[in-house]
Amino acid sequence: MKQRYAIGVDYGTETGRVLLVDVATGEEVATHVTPYKHGVLTEALPNGKRLETDWAIQHPKDYLEVLYQSVPAVIRMAEIDPKDVIGIGIDFTSSTILPLDKTGNPLCFHPNWRDHPHSWVKLWKHHAAQGEADDITRLAEERKELFLTRYGGKISSEWMFSKILQIAREAPDVFEATDIFIEACDWITYRLTNNLIRSSNTCGYKALWNKREGYPDSSFFKALDERFENILETKMRGPVLSIGGKAGELTEEMAHRLKLVPGTAVAVGMIDAHAGVPACGAVHSGQFVMTMGTSTCHMLISDKEKAIEGICGIVEDGIIPGNFSYETGQVAVGDSFAWYVNQAVPSYVKQQADEAGMSIHQFLEEKASVYKPGQSGLVALDWWNGNRSVLVDANLSGIVAGLTLTTKPEEIYRALLESTAFGTRKIIENFTEAGVEVNEIFACGGLPQKNKLLMQIYADVTNREIKIPDSDQTVALGAAIYAATAAGAKNGGYDTIVEAAENMAKVKEETFVPIPQNVQIYDELYKFYLELHDYFGRVTSIMYRLKKLRSLSMEFESKN
Amino acid sequence: MKQRYAIGVDYGTETGRVLLVDVATGEEVATHVTPYKHGVLTEALPNGKRLETDWAIQHPKDYLEVLYQSVPAVIRMAEIDPKDVIGIGIDFTSSTILPLDKTGNPLCFHPNWRDHPHSWVKLWKHHAAQGEADDITRLAEERKELFLTRYGGKISSEWMFSKILQIAREAPDVFEATDIFIEACDWITYRLTNNLIRSSNTCGYKALWNKREGYPDSSFFKALDERFENILETKMRGPVLSIGGKAGELTEEMAHRLKLVPGTAVAVGMIDAHAGVPACGAVHSGQFVMTMGTSTCHMLISDKEKAIEGICGIVEDGIIPGNFSYETGQVAVGDSFAWYVNQAVPSYVKQQADEAGMSIHQFLEEKASVYKPGQSGLVALDWWNGNRSVLVDANLSGIVAGLTLTTKPEEIYRALLESTAFGTRKIIENFTEAGVEVNEIFACGGLPQKNKLLMQIYADVTNREIKIPDSDQTVALGAAIYAATAAGAKNGGYDTIVEAAENMAKVKEETFVPIPQNVQIYDELYKFYLELHDYFGRVTSIMYRLKKLRSLSMEFESKN
Repeated sequence: MKQRYAIGVDYGTETGRVLLVDVATGEEVATHVTPYKHGVLTEALPNGKRLETDWAIQHPKDYLEVLYQSVPAVIRMAEIDPKDVIGIGIDFTSSTILPLDKTGNPLCFHPNWRDHPHSWVKLWKHHAAQGEADDITRLAEERKELFLTRYGGKISSEWMFSKILQIAREAPDVFEATDIFIEACDWITYRLTNNLIRSSNTCGYKALWNKREGYPDSSFFKALDERFENILETKMRGPVLSIGGKAGELTEEMAHRLKLVPGTAVAVGMIDAHAGVPACGAVHSGQFVMTMGTSTCHMLISDKEKAIEGICGIVEDGIIPGNFSYETGQVAVGDSFAWYVNQAVPSYVKQQADEAGMSIHQFLEEKASVYKPGQSGLVALDWWNGNRSVLVDANLSGIVAGLTLTTKPEEIYRALLESTAFGTRKIIENFTEAGVEVNEIFACGGLPQKNKLLMQIYADVTNREIKIPDSDQTVALGAAIYAATAAGAKNGGYDTIVEAAENMAKVKEETFVPIPQNVQIYDELYKFYLELHDYFGRVTSIMYRLKKLRSLSMEFESKN
Repeated sequence: MKQRYAIGVDYGTETGRVLLVDVATGEEVATHVTPYKHGVLTEALPNGKRLETDWAIQHPKDYLEVLYQSVPAVIRMAEIDPKDVIGIGIDFTSSTILPLDKTGNPLCFHPNWRDHPHSWVKLWKHHAAQGEADDITRLAEERKELFLTRYGGKISSEWMFSKILQIAREAPDVFEATDIFIEACDWITYRLTNNLIRSSNTCGYKALWNKREGYPDSSFFKALDERFENILETKMRGPVLSIGGKAGELTEEMAHRLKLVPGTAVAVGMIDAHAGVPACGAVHSGQFVMTMGTSTCHMLISDKEKAIEGICGIVEDGIIPGNFSYETGQVAVGDSFAWYVNQAVPSYVKQQADEAGMSIHQFLEEKASVYKPGQSGLVALDWWNGNRSVLVDANLSGIVAGLTLTTKPEEIYRALLESTAFGTRKIIENFTEAGVEVNEIFACGGLPQKNKLLMQIYADVTNREIKIPDSDQTVALGAAIYAATAAGAKNGGYDTIVEAAENMAKVKEETFVPIPQNVQIYDELYKFYLELHDYFGRVTSIMYRLKKLRSLSMEFESKN
């Protein structure tokens, strides 16, 4: 049989990565990365105009450059016939949005708008719409909007309508001039296919859309802002297509620029973290994927829809068509280990690590590996940047308990690793206690590759085997899997994500298996974690008061 | 008027210090230190015989050498007439005990006993009598012995009868051969005067003695060990004299060796920490002295006797005759700051401190000084080595709460300083709430001289002025004050400790005065401390369970 290929385009925060994959086996044939020329703009526009604090914008041309540079590059590197490429899939950071004109071009491309900050792309981590997010939450609470329960009761400043509302309030002229507001991944498929469609994945997680209920009612939007009354039919128009499907086919013009063949299938776009799910092979109800890096994002595929405490989002057809997908998160994971290494590891440890030719992380991992669970007498709460799931509370903060004069750095390090594992166990139990099953766990992202002790601790704490995908670029691989599905079996791809994942996704042979003796002790230690979790998370308001006192003390200061 | 002098001899853990003081003014005329040649023996006897773990012994000859070397030295250095020395006072670590033969010589001086570890001096920090201490506590509880309430309900392994019981159990022959068991300070006054007396201070704090009740009943001793039935009339004989009084006068022989005049007054001996109290000028009811070093010992003079939770000892005539003195403690103070600096200060801070030519403590003190109370958002529990007062619980451990990704080392350092201040406030409030007044606070020991920020925090947290004695050797000065009192007014000294202290003790002009704005914020922060204190100290048993799990995990380990 002739070899067929799919292309995954992974738009990250700083670079775009293009991966060429063998559709039959998932083999990664070639990869090419194009950094964004303008990067993340937080200080000023490309023309030098200053931005306010908490802004983060990007240049849409950088996204197109990824296509123009990296797609031809992988074809060239692999020395294949472009005819054998059957599909392209896109994943993107989200919610990253931009305003378009009537021709589908970014408003910021126009000479008369390009000096206006609000005409540019708002990157996911643009956090200047917090006031707007709070207003949306408040209004939804007042109106007892059911959609709020699908998002853990809180609308994020990162989401689509928070950002659009900020534009409407701060730049009525930009709002007025905008023909369409669109997620960046949907803009890319729009450019590739000339079809204006939206992804069920981005709309479900970032734009309050639901497969059965659709978007919130127009009366809700009107109450939010008079100008929003008909927004769904105007600036938010465009059909929502299910992920796993086809957004359209490559246009003549784009095929020419990308050195591909016109008519090539283009998949409905995805949020980057979510694209990694099928790349782990997780496509069935009960499969749970953790993307572990500075923070952890957990995604659970389930055939059940339940309103559960502390979920960041429940979306039907969210990741795997025909299923619900739940997203939860731990805000500081790698971040809190990095804090520890930078702010609290003594110089003698640094010196020993240097002498051993190891990073401090490696060195502490090795030292901490010698300890048995419970041996340090420490327990920590992993809330260095608040708690996203299941408490949904940014005011919470971290704790280390059990410190003594003999406590060693590697013991604290281990306690921090353990605390994030306990946080994950709490999230899993939150699902299972509500009757939503978690049957199989996969861990992807940077951390699982780097820290074996961490993964063994997760296995021991959760008492579950942990599987690691056999790819360094799961997200781009995931985008390619969606591409192969968009192409369909008749074109040499697959008719379902399940089939595509079964053939293209692989996990490593080496998995992390719970050690019964450790499981037993961690069962005890987890009880202590839970007790602290509930005391500080639900009973006392000490952490709120500490934070309040902190602001008070600084006001005091500025008055004096 | 002719100048008169008193000598204070301060027996510490590693060295003996002799201080010559002007009786009229307290001026420190000359000082000389003799290190103990054998130091602290924890591994082996001087002859090489191995010691078991937790042992700590000393060589009594080293104590005599301090007298023989340093007393003549200060006379020589000051170029004074020995006739003008009116008294000698002794303070000593405690409970440091030794077995004597019928002539008053240490058993370990005998060739037939010197190979036996139990014939040597047991230093205060000999901790091998824990089992014996627990048995004494248990027996006292069973018999509902009232004396237990004067010691916070717990007998320490460091105390006199715990150590004697260990000898009786492990070395019946040594026990049998002993004519007298004696505190080291009382042995020194015995050697100097040839009078066998005991100090109300050491007997009150370390040997279960009470001015009105005396020692525990002989039935108690019999129940402890048959051989102890008549111990009070035999191996523990010797009258208990009140501190502030005279133990006797210098013998002909000793005067010759010390280059002093026979008949010179020798004061009743004192525990070292307690000798510092009058040297601060604290001699009246309501005066509270903190000796702050690796740990803190608090001593309160009071005319009231109340059974209060968490007291290490209440002794009538304990420190100032005619008053009760209360002792409380915080186990890890300087120790926990040192732990932090050694185990948790990152290398970049060490490097900056090095570049600034400062110690890490100084550097962190300077950086932490810039912060306002409450600004760090942190609160800690100061239990790195358990809690002595008011919870009397060695199983408790330390906590830092409020940690975030932006927490800086100087903030944690400041939180640790604050936590010990909160611990002291809790101890003070424990007195005042029981109706025992605390009117004036003095801080002596090494820490107050070294860390101004620490003392300002104590002033702000307690909302009280803190006074610092104007001497680097308060304990030796205190011993000299007791010496001047033992001599009496008719010999150029004083008839009471109060008069002696009024003339000989001085505090620095610079005191630490509460800053109202800081007091206000610390009042809030102290509430958070109290909440954690009561939760971890009285409500949850998490810290016990962590400690238990720790042992369990290590047993597990050793079995595998």
